[in-house]
Amino acid sequence: MTIERESLRWNGWGPISQENMLPDDAPQWTWMREALGMSHLPDTKAKPLEAITMAPCRLSDDTIARLSAIVGGAQVKTDNYERAFHARGKSYHDLLYLRAGKLDLAPDAVVYPRDIDEVLDVINLASEEDITLIPYGGGSSVVGGVNATAKSLGGNVITLDTTLMTRVIQIDKIAMTATVEAGIYGPALEEALQRHGVTLAHYPQSFQYSTLGGWIAARGAGQQSNRYGKAEKWLVSVKAATPRGIWVTESTPASAAGPNLNQLLAGSEGTLGVICEATIKIHEVPGRKDYRGYLFKDFSSGVEAARRINHADIPVAMVRLSDAQETYFFQAFSSTSSTTSVKARLQRAYLRFRGFEDEPCLMLIGHEGDNDTVAWAQSRSEHICTSLGAMKLGTSAGNRWYHGRFGSPYSRDPMMDHGIGIDTLETSTRWSNIESLREKTVKAIEEAIAANLPEPGGRGIVMAHVSHSYPDGASLYFTYVFPRQLDREVEQWQAIKRAASDVLLENKGTISHHHGVGLDHAPWLAEEKGAIGYELLKSIKAEMDPVGVMNPGKLLG
Amino acid sequence: MTIERESLRWNGWGPISQENMLPDDAPQWTWMREALGMSHLPDTKAKPLEAITMAPCRLSDDTIARLSAIVGGAQVKTDNYERAFHARGKSYHDLLYLRAGKLDLAPDAVVYPRDIDEVLDVINLASEEDITLIPYGGGSSVVGGVNATAKSLGGNVITLDTTLMTRVIQIDKIAMTATVEAGIYGPALEEALQRHGVTLAHYPQSFQYSTLGGWIAARGAGQQSNRYGKAEKWLVSVKAATPRGIWVTESTPASAAGPNLNQLLAGSEGTLGVICEATIKIHEVPGRKDYRGYLFKDFSSGVEAARRINHADIPVAMVRLSDAQETYFFQAFSSTSSTTSVKARLQRAYLRFRGFEDEPCLMLIGHEGDNDTVAWAQSRSEHICTSLGAMKLGTSAGNRWYHGRFGSPYSRDPMMDHGIGIDTLETSTRWSNIESLREKTVKAIEEAIAANLPEPGGRGIVMAHVSHSYPDGASLYFTYVFPRQLDREVEQWQAIKRAASDVLLENKGTISHHHGVGLDHAPWLAEEKGAIGYELLKSIKAEMDPVGVMNPGKLLG
Repeated sequence: MTIERESLRWNGWGPISQENMLPDDAPQWTWMREALGMSHLPDTKAKPLEAITMAPCRLSDDTIARLSAIVGGAQVKTDNYERAFHARGKSYHDLLYLRAGKLDLAPDAVVYPRDIDEVLDVINLASEEDITLIPYGGGSSVVGGVNATAKSLGGNVITLDTTLMTRVIQIDKIAMTATVEAGIYGPALEEALQRHGVTLAHYPQSFQYSTLGGWIAARGAGQQSNRYGKAEKWLVSVKAATPRGIWVTESTPASAAGPNLNQLLAGSEGTLGVICEATIKIHEVPGRKDYRGYLFKDFSSGVEAARRINHADIPVAMVRLSDAQETYFFQAFSSTSSTTSVKARLQRAYLRFRGFEDEPCLMLIGHEGDNDTVAWAQSRSEHICTSLGAMKLGTSAGNRWYHGRFGSPYSRDPMMDHGIGIDTLETSTRWSNIESLREKTVKAIEEAIAANLPEPGGRGIVMAHVSHSYPDGASLYFTYVFPRQLDREVEQWQAIKRAASDVLLENKGTISHHHGVGLDHAPWLAEEKGAIGYELLKSIKAEMDPVGVMNPGKLLG
Repeated sequence: MTIERESLRWNGWGPISQENMLPDDAPQWTWMREALGMSHLPDTKAKPLEAITMAPCRLSDDTIARLSAIVGGAQVKTDNYERAFHARGKSYHDLLYLRAGKLDLAPDAVVYPRDIDEVLDVINLASEEDITLIPYGGGSSVVGGVNATAKSLGGNVITLDTTLMTRVIQIDKIAMTATVEAGIYGPALEEALQRHGVTLAHYPQSFQYSTLGGWIAARGAGQQSNRYGKAEKWLVSVKAATPRGIWVTESTPASAAGPNLNQLLAGSEGTLGVICEATIKIHEVPGRKDYRGYLFKDFSSGVEAARRINHADIPVAMVRLSDAQETYFFQAFSSTSSTTSVKARLQRAYLRFRGFEDEPCLMLIGHEGDNDTVAWAQSRSEHICTSLGAMKLGTSAGNRWYHGRFGSPYSRDPMMDHGIGIDTLETSTRWSNIESLREKTVKAIEEAIAANLPEPGGRGIVMAHVSHSYPDGASLYFTYVFPRQLDREVEQWQAIKRAASDVLLENKGTISHHHGVGLDHAPWLAEEKGAIGYELLKSIKAEMDPVGVMNPGKLLG
């Protein structure tokens, strides 16, 4: 089972039928306009597909016939909707193009193979005819990872959509592994697993519209990665179609038989082949989930709590620490009118925050597992928090976050309809560097926004949170909201991106913790990997894809 | 600080001054002779170095002068002891050659660089002159990983001994990482770390005579890997000298910036370069260690307990399950005469074992950490064991194992002095396959021994244990003792090795869980990795080492 493309927005997030989270009469608009220092909220609706003229498919009749012979004629799509849908991913950067009707990147055709043999045949055809092939799962990349860029000027492009490959091949409840075709969407995967009492529990914010293969290819992280691990951790084995043939990687629980080649496919972003099948680690569906909030007096004490929780080996599922700005913003942004206890406390805290030295920061801690473990772990994590001066907010704050945890992306489309930009970026760094890197990155983004404003008096809102943590450090996730420069919006985005990325790399952060590299981060990869590592990755690419048809330009630039 | 080569056995395990664990009047000899069905125990002492004629060093004066200019004349060794010491590793296979005085593999010279720049200069010299370079740490490889094999017939060989590179560069107690030069031996590393209250806690059986760099290069596992992880898990970052220059890998806590290249160096076995420095994850020295024993009625229920402990996420440091044969053997082999409670229980159980259906299997469970965690985890692991019918043996069995945990290798030299062979091999496989793979491998080794005996009536003893476990499966470690065929001992070893390795690969095991590949497992690597993965590894080698001087023949054959 997959999701019909026609039911989804080709130029936004989620289903076409999705209710607008921020209708024009929502109270947030006035607040946002004032917070961003905008004189008015312009009408910047997206261009409908009907109003856009697309270049025709350039594939020859012969190529179309060959593709049809492989996957069946009905699985070769050249209509405008399919081509527009697969033109780009879902980044703010992508939406700037899609919403403006700039569809120069639309692929010439989209093919939907139904098994790995068909994928292999398509790859072979692409290699023979030197046609660029773009592997595409949910298409939720926010780094240009699925953009239909040709390898050379004027080159032809086929997008290979994996979402008909959704079979659950094996569930091994003794080894607690499952083998699943990689085109399966998050909800279908969890439904299939939970029917058997097991779960992968990989819940990125994109969960509803992203696929297993994409999670692996981009080294994704679910919100509960403390317990369940990033993709490279829960990955056991891969079956990939590559220009060299079908590649089945090692699958033993642990090995010293040379380097673990699964770790080359995790993060390969479609440049080496198409991940068609994966064996993954599964868990029993947790008997209990406990999410609750704590308010720290400042970011520093929250970071210290997160670090101690990690070093004490407490089995948490999630530790999420918002900085003061984000703590305030989400409270202010919340459309609920009821004065909950949490809200009242936050507001009291915020009053202090405005006038005095306090900068309250919200931490959400999630525990998942059996009753005993959750109870034991929760009391230990709580002890660490309260010993560092945190105020207990109870489960209501945790549950509210949990129930809305896939919601944020839906607010972007209406914001973009009103001249407001919103984007995110993320990194990870050592514990000793977290606060410094957060401060420097926030400052860089703020300054870049300030230097790229549509009108005087404007300003951006930049906020951050720690969402994934490890023994040696943690991730930092930045969200920034800003008034769009409508006459140079791509340049505005680029200026912000460049400023932030430079700061990350100069200050011992990674260019991405879980979004991947794609096109947008590729200019920084050589610096991050160093010349030797970068050249080695290029040589691996050349070995696996001699003609260079697999997602060219992504990852390695 | 390092260990003086002259204080160590060049053709055996440990210091020259080491007391013989099995003197000629030890009571074990009679028992062993009978158990192995040997008519007598032949005198098969090793040949002393003085009685061996070695080929002279073939390096030109010019090359020696160039090496001396890099590392200093005193650090270029061409004497017989150094060359013999570095000829081979410490496998049973190696000892057959060393003890017989077959030193055809001795390197022409041994160099001891003191920092990465010197290592790089030596690599460049080797590349320029096309001289084979063998990276060597503790030299404890049991797979031929450090053997001084030239890349071509008659080629010259230099062994690069890393053990003068022992500096602790940084200990970061906030990120809980340490950066250390990789030539440091286990004890020196732990002493340096524990002085600051921290530990890596990587304790392989070879701990006393192996180095940090070797652990990473061969993807080693410490006995407490359940808690502290295999080398590839605690590895944060590497600084390696390679024919391409100095390669510093990524070091952020987690990343989605392409594949993690640390995972290419873990398991590279010196074929891509020399690991000169590593950043590793450290822990607080545990406040409490709790090791205790359980007796299971059969292997199957013990495996089930190990699996449940893993799936319940109980933070164990070690779960070690001996099969019935090993449980019996180590009890019988033990030279203690006191009738401890454990021993008495084991003996009673053994009586049942002999005559009836029972096959008691000893499990040792180790917990390490703070008091609370150890107490909580211990009660949970014990509950799983007793609910599966295990008999509690208390801490004495655990403590006895703990105190003797590095001891086994010392018994090999005296056994080899008396015509007895002893070797080990190891693998890992899925939980659902553990028992089947153990049975098949034991049978294959038993049959190979039976087909390669020095006299009628002989037999081998083959035993196994699970020593490292994971969510999806566990390792199996096999020890086999057998009467040596003195006239064809290498062929005898090869026959056993081949039989076991074939069975592992045919039955979804890995060719090695933590020993590595070296020369001895190289013939099976292509099958394990598959043609695509294997060719990719070869291309990576070619990219990093174009002249092919780095440890040629290892890993990739």
